[in-house]
Amino acid sequence: MNLELALRMCEASVKQAGREGALVSVAVVDAGGHLVAFQRMDGSEIAGPALAPGKAYTAVAHRMSTADLAPLVVPGGELYGLAGDRYVCFGGGIPLWDSGEGRRVAGAVGVSGGTVAQDVACAEAAAALWDGG
Amino acid sequence: MNLELALRMCEASVKQAGREGALVSVAVVDAGGHLVAFQRMDGSEIAGPALAPGKAYTAVAHRMSTADLAPLVVPGGELYGLAGDRYVCFGGGIPLWDSGEGRRVAGAVGVSGGTVAQDVACAEAAAALWDGG
Amino acid sequence: MNLELALRMCEASVKQAGREGALVSVAVVDAGGHLVAFQRMDGSEIAGPALAPGKAYTAVAHRMSTADLAPLVVPGGELYGLAGDRYVCFGGGIPLWDSGEGRRVAGAVGVSGGTVAQDVACAEAAAALWDGG
Amino acid sequence: MNLELALRMCEASVKQAGREGALVSVAVVDAGGHLVAFQRMDGSEIAGPALAPGKAYTAVAHRMSTADLAPLVVPGGELYGLAGDRYVCFGGGIPLWDSGEGRRVAGAVGVSGGTVAQDVACAEAAAALWDGG
Repeated sequence: MNLELALRMCEASVKQAGREGALVSVAVVDAGGHLVAFQRMDGSEIAGPALAPGKAYTAVAHRMSTADLAPLVVPGGELYGLAGDRYVCFGGGIPLWDSGEGRRVAGAVGVSGGTVAQDVACAEAAAALWDGG
Repeated sequence: MNLELALRMCEASVKQAGREGALVSVAVVDAGGHLVAFQRMDGSEIAGPALAPGKAYTAVAHRMSTADLAPLVVPGGELYGLAGDRYVCFGGGIPLWDSGEGRRVAGAVGVSGGTVAQDVACAEAAAALWDGG
Repeated sequence: MNLELALRMCEASVKQAGREGALVSVAVVDAGGHLVAFQRMDGSEIAGPALAPGKAYTAVAHRMSTADLAPLVVPGGELYGLAGDRYVCFGGGIPLWDSGEGRRVAGAVGVSGGTVAQDVACAEAAAALWDGG
Repeated sequence: MNLELALRMCEASVKQAGREGALVSVAVVDAGGHLVAFQRMDGSEIAGPALAPGKAYTAVAHRMSTADLAPLVVPGGELYGLAGDRYVCFGGGIPLWDSGEGRRVAGAVGVSGGTVAQDVACAEAAAALWDGG
């Protein structure tokens, strides 16, 4: 992950949010789950600065999209009981995979502020710019 | 939000609690979710100083009443897995909307101590004083 | 401590702040350190909702004014190393003593937002209303 | 504060860091201390995502630059004992003042990653773009 790409990812999410009629926050984190870039659209909720980085962190930490994680954390699900104050376990966080051999996560994007469907669409718009590092 | 209005909101909630036969805490927060005024009725539970500001904060942070948020965070709900140590996701928190253009939250009221229905009624009594800033 | 008195204490602090030319937050807590009333003056800093209750809590928890506690927590002081995320150890928190036999703390007032001298003056204006419960 | 300005502020800090030979993170927060934009330069330390927003938050919360706050929190200083897990009390956080009547803080910029002097210079480069809202 690098700042220049992270910024373009943020812009892609914000642009998609405009198409969706949503107001979102978008976060891009590196392989350590640490924030590289963050943007909150004017008028979007103040939960975004916690939830967007949280979704991105969760996607890195569990190496899967938060949308895929969601059904696993419900009661009876395989990961029910997952605890951690930085985890956000519903759609909007997408891991970005290294193109090299091995399956390494190179970072993630997280979006929050719209409906879950909107957040996912905005995160996907950002992830589409990722080319495997 | 300003202190004079926040105080009148607290009084309206306390008065409503008297009608409901409830003992409540009431909190009013600004657009950043920061406390402006708080009152805890004599004999009401010590959870109030955490829960009433928490409900108000949550209503600001998510731009919706905590009563509307409640069904979204149950297992299988769209926002199940919502994380954040200041979130309180059941009824009693109501956002207050700016009357200006755009949909901006100007603050919120949160009530805790009675039944959820009583908390909601007390919060509504306070929110009724809000005129859009 | 009761809400009616706590409100009058908050008003006394706010009035004193006006005389001091300060913008403050004031908190009144009970014997358990739990918030009873809180008021933040318009335009005062957002640190107040944390610091004013923190000073009041600290004054109850350590049964002394935070001004008296301050010199004890410096390196070499008797209480150096005092830890706790709710402690605020500089002037502006004043314990309120029960008039009955034994030395029991019945609550405290905490003020934050001005200089320490202003905060102390505002807290003293509130404490002056206390008559021993 | 708005996103467009916050982004330009981040860019100004990053550009100044280039002149300083420093690698920094820069954060811009709104009047509530909530993140609006964040950028971390490639190769800069992972402390930045905590410290840069922390400095910006602290500058808003205490209505002063963190460089001015630093001497107040040393042992014996007026604010020694200041508590709060989001506070960062050394140089690099600068509050941004509203041009309207009253003295209201409209947001802040925080920079971390270089020496304190470099962080301050980078924050000042961002703050120079602020025109009072």
